[in-house]
Amino acid sequence: MDRNGRDQRNMGEEEEEDKRDELDPNQKSKRAREDNQQGLVMAEESMSVERIFEAQEVPSWQNQLTVRAFVVSFGLSVLFTFIVMKLNLTTGIIPSLNVSAGLLGFFFVKSWTKLLEKSGWLKQPFTRQENTVIQTCVVASSGIAFSGGFGSYLFGLSQRISQLSSDDINEFKNPSLGWIIGFLFIVSFLGLFSVVPLRKIMIIDFKLTYPSGTATAHLINSFHTPRGAKLAKKQVRTLGKFFSFSFLWGFFQWFFTAGDDCGFVSFPTFGLEAYKNKFYFDFSATYVGVGMICPYIINISVLLGGILSWGLMWPLIEKKRGDWFSAELPLSSFHGLQGYKVFISIALILGDGIYNFVKVLATTLIGLHRQLKKRDVIPVSDGSPSSLSDLSFDDKRRTQRFLKDQIPSWFAVGGYVAIAAVSIATLPHIFSQLKWYYIIVIYVIAPVLAFCNAYGSGLTDWSLASTYGKLAIFTIGAWAGAAHGGVIAGLAACGVMMNIVSTASDLMQDFKTGYLTLSSPRSMFVSQVVGTAMGCVISPCVFWLFYKAFDDLGQLGSAYPAPYATVYRNMALLAVEGFSSLPKNCLSLCYGFFAAAIVINLIRDLSGKKVSQYIPIPMAMAIPFYIGSYFAIDMCLGSLILFVWEKINKAKADAFAPAVASGLICGDGIWTLPSSILALFGVKPPICMKFLSRTTNVKVDKFLTP
Amino acid sequence: MDRNGRDQRNMGEEEEEDKRDELDPNQKSKRAREDNQQGLVMAEESMSVERIFEAQEVPSWQNQLTVRAFVVSFGLSVLFTFIVMKLNLTTGIIPSLNVSAGLLGFFFVKSWTKLLEKSGWLKQPFTRQENTVIQTCVVASSGIAFSGGFGSYLFGLSQRISQLSSDDINEFKNPSLGWIIGFLFIVSFLGLFSVVPLRKIMIIDFKLTYPSGTATAHLINSFHTPRGAKLAKKQVRTLGKFFSFSFLWGFFQWFFTAGDDCGFVSFPTFGLEAYKNKFYFDFSATYVGVGMICPYIINISVLLGGILSWGLMWPLIEKKRGDWFSAELPLSSFHGLQGYKVFISIALILGDGIYNFVKVLATTLIGLHRQLKKRDVIPVSDGSPSSLSDLSFDDKRRTQRFLKDQIPSWFAVGGYVAIAAVSIATLPHIFSQLKWYYIIVIYVIAPVLAFCNAYGSGLTDWSLASTYGKLAIFTIGAWAGAAHGGVIAGLAACGVMMNIVSTASDLMQDFKTGYLTLSSPRSMFVSQVVGTAMGCVISPCVFWLFYKAFDDLGQLGSAYPAPYATVYRNMALLAVEGFSSLPKNCLSLCYGFFAAAIVINLIRDLSGKKVSQYIPIPMAMAIPFYIGSYFAIDMCLGSLILFVWEKINKAKADAFAPAVASGLICGDGIWTLPSSILALFGVKPPICMKFLSRTTNVKVDKFLTP
Repeated sequence: MDRNGRDQRNMGEEEEEDKRDELDPNQKSKRAREDNQQGLVMAEESMSVERIFEAQEVPSWQNQLTVRAFVVSFGLSVLFTFIVMKLNLTTGIIPSLNVSAGLLGFFFVKSWTKLLEKSGWLKQPFTRQENTVIQTCVVASSGIAFSGGFGSYLFGLSQRISQLSSDDINEFKNPSLGWIIGFLFIVSFLGLFSVVPLRKIMIIDFKLTYPSGTATAHLINSFHTPRGAKLAKKQVRTLGKFFSFSFLWGFFQWFFTAGDDCGFVSFPTFGLEAYKNKFYFDFSATYVGVGMICPYIINISVLLGGILSWGLMWPLIEKKRGDWFSAELPLSSFHGLQGYKVFISIALILGDGIYNFVKVLATTLIGLHRQLKKRDVIPVSDGSPSSLSDLSFDDKRRTQRFLKDQIPSWFAVGGYVAIAAVSIATLPHIFSQLKWYYIIVIYVIAPVLAFCNAYGSGLTDWSLASTYGKLAIFTIGAWAGAAHGGVIAGLAACGVMMNIVSTASDLMQDFKTGYLTLSSPRSMFVSQVVGTAMGCVISPCVFWLFYKAFDDLGQLGSAYPAPYATVYRNMALLAVEGFSSLPKNCLSLCYGFFAAAIVINLIRDLSGKKVSQYIPIPMAMAIPFYIGSYFAIDMCLGSLILFVWEKINKAKADAFAPAVASGLICGDGIWTLPSSILALFGVKPPICMKFLSRTTNVKVDKFLTP
Repeated sequence: MDRNGRDQRNMGEEEEEDKRDELDPNQKSKRAREDNQQGLVMAEESMSVERIFEAQEVPSWQNQLTVRAFVVSFGLSVLFTFIVMKLNLTTGIIPSLNVSAGLLGFFFVKSWTKLLEKSGWLKQPFTRQENTVIQTCVVASSGIAFSGGFGSYLFGLSQRISQLSSDDINEFKNPSLGWIIGFLFIVSFLGLFSVVPLRKIMIIDFKLTYPSGTATAHLINSFHTPRGAKLAKKQVRTLGKFFSFSFLWGFFQWFFTAGDDCGFVSFPTFGLEAYKNKFYFDFSATYVGVGMICPYIINISVLLGGILSWGLMWPLIEKKRGDWFSAELPLSSFHGLQGYKVFISIALILGDGIYNFVKVLATTLIGLHRQLKKRDVIPVSDGSPSSLSDLSFDDKRRTQRFLKDQIPSWFAVGGYVAIAAVSIATLPHIFSQLKWYYIIVIYVIAPVLAFCNAYGSGLTDWSLASTYGKLAIFTIGAWAGAAHGGVIAGLAACGVMMNIVSTASDLMQDFKTGYLTLSSPRSMFVSQVVGTAMGCVISPCVFWLFYKAFDDLGQLGSAYPAPYATVYRNMALLAVEGFSSLPKNCLSLCYGFFAAAIVINLIRDLSGKKVSQYIPIPMAMAIPFYIGSYFAIDMCLGSLILFVWEKINKAKADAFAPAVASGLICGDGIWTLPSSILALFGVKPPICMKFLSRTTNVKVDKFLTP
């Protein structure tokens, strides 16, 4: 099992830290799986991947960028944006969709080319470079759905969340299609330009691993070897089956959800008492799939968190009602029980985040120091044939290809400066509270942080985008202060920062994928730019659909509680107001959990792999603290299915579990499209599947029979 | 596919005609499957089954009857009685449980002997003869649960059903443990004694096939060959898995059934409108299993019947309310819509039954005539070595064994006369309306009918027990007349007749099984007697549990509507009252459907196999007429699963589908034991899963929130 402590650690972080990161960690276990498959293929043929592909001509970078690739990318982007948006707004836990993107991209273009081949119109065969372009474009595009903050900072700006927070500061900026698209266009491209000049250092000189990028490359390579394609086809078929099942299941469930607490999502699987404490299986195909992709320890952590909070702490704190907090407060008040839930989660998340920030920063600096020292001694490959001679065949060929198409540095620097200038001029028009000098400061610091993030994720596969975002909330929020719109300024700054550092690490991952599939860096860059542009339009539109279709978006207990929107807004409040607004004993509990997060992390890192793999991850534990553990039940079921499957047939489970999980996630995710359209047009489900206690049922039956 | 028109025909008949018969037809397709498996084993080893077993010593008949066999039989009898009773009281469709009995018997005794073997205490190895004894005993015992008429004539005598029928004749005899056990003991052994002397003629001279008996013998033989046991173990494991699943699913469902129309059994899968017309999937593992065992045409017929009646006819007749029948009548009145439902079902059942009665009688007489003619010419085997010489090795060995242990004719005749005398003296004390001279007439005719039934089922695998029972209702009922308790007399006479003819054909089937497994006729007879005695105690007790636990037993729309109880009582009413009590146009519709049943049967028999396999079976269509087609949906789902499975892997489906189906049926069946005990002790489920239309839900939500 590759699900060792390390992977799990990263996994746990990313689960929550950053969407892209969240894509990565799972990717790792997937990578190991792919390695196995790849291993099979390679053992039979030769140990060199590029020898197998030697006969294949590598198309020029312009030819790697085909129209069909972008058409397919657009379709898949819409699909994945729906999925990511749904996950954003339900729990914020987002698993890796790279494999699905790779699989589906392969499937669609392959079908297309097969069709054209038969009709004799095929001009260009489907290459792995083109597949890489699709994968890059889709991941860039759906990445915006995460880094756009629709489930966190951006939605945290809205009046809905502001009302939920019940604070004195009544500042908000409601989402609107216009400014969101504008905002995303202004801030999303900076990250790309900031790290482009560093690609040779990172990929060729430092030889960073970028586990996710490597995994994706292996997947794509395996698809395009004759045997790999066979497996890929089977995987696609499995994915398709579970996709249909999951879609139809979502459709079927819909009919029974007329009204609140109706339908399978409110199924009191373990009884009504457990349901009240948010312990139930909600029949969500999505989270069963997520559970199958996430490492076991994540699922166990989430469940443990749920038991600790909803099973133990909240009932105990509830008993202190009237003592620790006023008994008259409504249930939703942040000065009551709700406050404990949110701020203890924040404490756990921050404790874990800060620990790992320090850890990754240290690793980064130490690694950088070593790399630079080494570089002084041996000038690694400068691309000249002589220095290539001591490399393996694969490395030689890849390095040649990678260095063939250059992106001039003046282009990157010029682009960065130009976009920065535009955004300094325009951003204050969108957020009047975000002064131009805040933005300049962010843009000066950002490239450094972007580099740190790209380097760190190359080492650990673990992007810290949302931690950098939180940093921005606290610094800019405190700088502006409560009186000058610090909450809005902090959240907006978080958005700017997150977008830059997130796309920077994304791009570098893609360069690694490109390196391993002989794709040109230019085509990778163009694909990422196109994907980002797509994402800047698709994501706001999809969010807008959800926002308009579901009036209770962000409401706790609704289908879309968007837990992080509340969490982010409360972090901003904390930044400008300090700890004064917290209920009694909440602060001490927060300190305790903050410290606990750090201690648990220390124990995980200091103990051996054997012990650490059984130690839960604080970040993962924090999520059910706020929204309850129903999704933990789903995820644990997914884990259980995978566990049993692996016991029965490990090889089959390894090859097909990702496809099954992706199918479950994609099918349910795409169902949200028709479901939100139905809601928009006011088509309501006809039946309510209601769960009543026996005594209530007797009353209702009496009421209904005249 | 062995599911040809012929088999389906028989199947359809038995579905409804007789429990034992219902066991048989499925058995046929099973037989064909077993034949295949057997074929495999045989092809590899030798064409003679008995050659394989030659080295094995055949135990004496006393040694075939072991204590452990009867202990296991008792356990399995309780299990199967629960299952048969549940099926009796829900739809009256009872699939073959012989395979489950064989499998589970093998499993338990094998585990037991393995355990003893390890501890060194094993005195006697487990032989196929012992397995046959168990199988015979269990089938005899659970057969009583059908022929005891707990779902038909016996329950039809009760006040509950009498009140439902809303007739003027207020005669009833409520069930009570005492008289039921007495009644069964008096009438259930006559059938055994009446045909015992004929066993040599039927089995050896006439060489009747008895497909069910043959199938069971093949199954048992295959279990006891080394390779067969391997497959059997796998089958048992599969059965166990689905048994557990089905049991746990039943348990889970229970929690959500607080109140009427609650839980998965009331799930409006196709919407509330379809639910009102009894179209829904009720999540019954039992009937999904039944659907997997029954031939496709049965399932399709049932569904067609449901669509024809609830989808078309009842809504049309409902529109005539106030015209064809009084608009003031309660919904449950037999002078209203309910009357059409019951009497049109009866017309279909009678039409089909009479057609097949005539057909089988003709086949019987023609066959008998030919056999006797042949016998005049060539005196087939009299057991002497000389006449055996021209037989195959298998036949020789089997005939020798079969003729070794004799049962003297004086014993059989003496037993019959003695029991008949006792029952003539005692039966009128149980049913005062059943005069002693009616009983004498029945007992004089019965042996002839018992012979007919045993011979007919040997030819066609299709027992007509319930048709002979209906004959008794109409003749004795009309003879006694309405004024002299004709309804009670008719139903009681039906019971006497059914028990005799049903056990007669059962015993002969078992003799055939015994013949093929080298089991002694004596051990078969003893096993059948012991099994019948068990059944006479177990069945009434299990029925009593249901009767006491579920107050709404027999109520239409409840969990246990016992459709045939109403049908049988109404047949008795028809016999004594004539057609005067029927609502308007009901009689013409009945004539139409009676004729249609005969015409459809004629078409089935006259057309080729290719056409006839697509022609529905009237008998199967009649059941949903009365109770609705929810179980048809279950059964069709079972069919669909089997169909897809056979498409994917025919060999695996053939080997394991019976095990899966049996597991589903047994698990759900045995769950009724704890469920009825819970009901008896007043433990009620805690939650009601209710299905409300959106508008009703809004009302209820308003009502519930103060």
